[in-house]
Amino acid sequence: MNTGNGTRLYVNEVATRDGFQMESRFIPTEDKIALVDRLSGLGYAKIEVTSFTSPKAIPALRDGEEVMGRIARRPGVVYTALVPNLRGGERALDSRVDEFNIVMSASETHNLANLRMTREQSFAQLSEVIALARQAKVPVNVSLSCVFGCPMEGEVPLAGVLEWIDRFDVLGVAGITMCDTTGMAYPTQVQQVCASALERFPSLDFTAHFHNTRAMGLVNTVAAVEAGVRRFDMSLGGIGGCPYAPGATGNVATEDVIHMLQCMGYDTGMDLDGLIGAAAQLEELVQHELPAQVSRAGHRLTRHAPPADFSEIVERAKARGEGRKELQA
Amino acid sequence: MNTGNGTRLYVNEVATRDGFQMESRFIPTEDKIALVDRLSGLGYAKIEVTSFTSPKAIPALRDGEEVMGRIARRPGVVYTALVPNLRGGERALDSRVDEFNIVMSASETHNLANLRMTREQSFAQLSEVIALARQAKVPVNVSLSCVFGCPMEGEVPLAGVLEWIDRFDVLGVAGITMCDTTGMAYPTQVQQVCASALERFPSLDFTAHFHNTRAMGLVNTVAAVEAGVRRFDMSLGGIGGCPYAPGATGNVATEDVIHMLQCMGYDTGMDLDGLIGAAAQLEELVQHELPAQVSRAGHRLTRHAPPADFSEIVERAKARGEGRKELQA
Repeated sequence: MNTGNGTRLYVNEVATRDGFQMESRFIPTEDKIALVDRLSGLGYAKIEVTSFTSPKAIPALRDGEEVMGRIARRPGVVYTALVPNLRGGERALDSRVDEFNIVMSASETHNLANLRMTREQSFAQLSEVIALARQAKVPVNVSLSCVFGCPMEGEVPLAGVLEWIDRFDVLGVAGITMCDTTGMAYPTQVQQVCASALERFPSLDFTAHFHNTRAMGLVNTVAAVEAGVRRFDMSLGGIGGCPYAPGATGNVATEDVIHMLQCMGYDTGMDLDGLIGAAAQLEELVQHELPAQVSRAGHRLTRHAPPADFSEIVERAKARGEGRKELQA
Repeated sequence: MNTGNGTRLYVNEVATRDGFQMESRFIPTEDKIALVDRLSGLGYAKIEVTSFTSPKAIPALRDGEEVMGRIARRPGVVYTALVPNLRGGERALDSRVDEFNIVMSASETHNLANLRMTREQSFAQLSEVIALARQAKVPVNVSLSCVFGCPMEGEVPLAGVLEWIDRFDVLGVAGITMCDTTGMAYPTQVQQVCASALERFPSLDFTAHFHNTRAMGLVNTVAAVEAGVRRFDMSLGGIGGCPYAPGATGNVATEDVIHMLQCMGYDTGMDLDGLIGAAAQLEELVQHELPAQVSRAGHRLTRHAPPADFSEIVERAKARGEGRKELQA
């Protein structure tokens, strides 16, 4: 495992989209805007602000236009949104998003279960969305689900994943996010899959998106970095998840990943204390405990006070001396 | 990150000692014995059965003699127990333990806070315990706390850690466990510390002991394996922890670590399904949810059923065809 040596990594926040869409409580629009504005100052390369899905399908994000319209855009931060179809693409363009994030699954069963279309149907629909974006000169990123396995099909062959990437590459997308949608990825697989994709498509920007379902979110991140991936999706507090994996915890937590990468010597550009503060605000918004651990335990060098009777302990220890007889007394 | 390639790793279970001592409910003696007997069949190299500490100090383990005396010992499994002092050593010998596990901290403040002695006082006391064990031809392992940092002092210099290991090596101990007592270790540090220790003391058996406090338990395990460590402490369900790190989660969970190592191609000798079954029993014993994730989410290839209306989804998708007009209808 190599030291980071200042290698620059780029962080995408997904809590406000991937996270909020899973929350049972509607997060007030003002609070969404305030959170995005707070996050904008913490060093992110990209923030997935909202989704232009049908308000009936995802009522939690029915205020996408208002949120996109009222956030304070910080130069250098890419404000992206999920775009499922042409209608969503038009709304996204009206809201002046910096990027379209489009989604389909590498697994036929998962695509049908999640998007209610075959993969070919999704691809046809997304091809139109890509054409719309290109016409408007807005870059497109494809979030490809189930790259490391499908909870219903099992293994997802790498050859098929690479073929879908190739078809999107031909259409001129800017980047691909390799999503471990239900936390099935493991480190040596991550390294193999990511290395294969990066080697075959050197001109695409690859992002990795891990879930911590089976406790491997952080080790998979290191595996992806070692394979050459430089962009990562993370979710503040670890909120979000997938409805098709019962018991699943959510996305890997931004503060946990950043803490580790900073300890290892990577340059993430992120403000860790700022993240921990924002996570406290997020916990108030969602009104439940967050799965993230660093916002609870603090940075590794956070000092804890010794026991209240510490000075007496020290006095008694000194009084005993170091010899055998005193110790047994 | 390398593929395991069948490299043999050895697993020590600590739930019955490090875990149970932290539980507020007294686990009935019969249940402790039944759990150890169940674990004995799952492939462990070692099980830390109990502690011969004063029953007043740790009432949760006041039945150490009875548990050690009544478990069914499986050939090949080392049944160890924590031994704090000469009195504990005599009780451990009476109970025919296979190994003494003795504990001190690499941090002076942590040793005082936890053991109420200076490190020199602990070393003097443990020297007597080691002499007793050697006389009885019972091997001794030293669990050295705070090797990767102290929650009260901060960084713990490697030179000091190596010096303590050297002093125990001179006394003829068989092994050293490098404990990340409050989850301060990070991967590149783990690799450096473990590689240094293994290089300097080639005749000692080194074990790594990680906590998942800051979500790095699994990635630290991989770092230690890559540095050459072959023995690992783990706690079924992830129970146990440390009272001096508020908010800390416990030991790294056996089922989570084994699942990852097996996915990566290491030979752990362990029965993962058996572990998941034993964790369910453990959850009943401790009467609270376990922090482990694989026992909740299952093995990565655990199949989940598609949505209840899946066949209708497929029918409707087929009826739509693949063309543009049908999709927009």
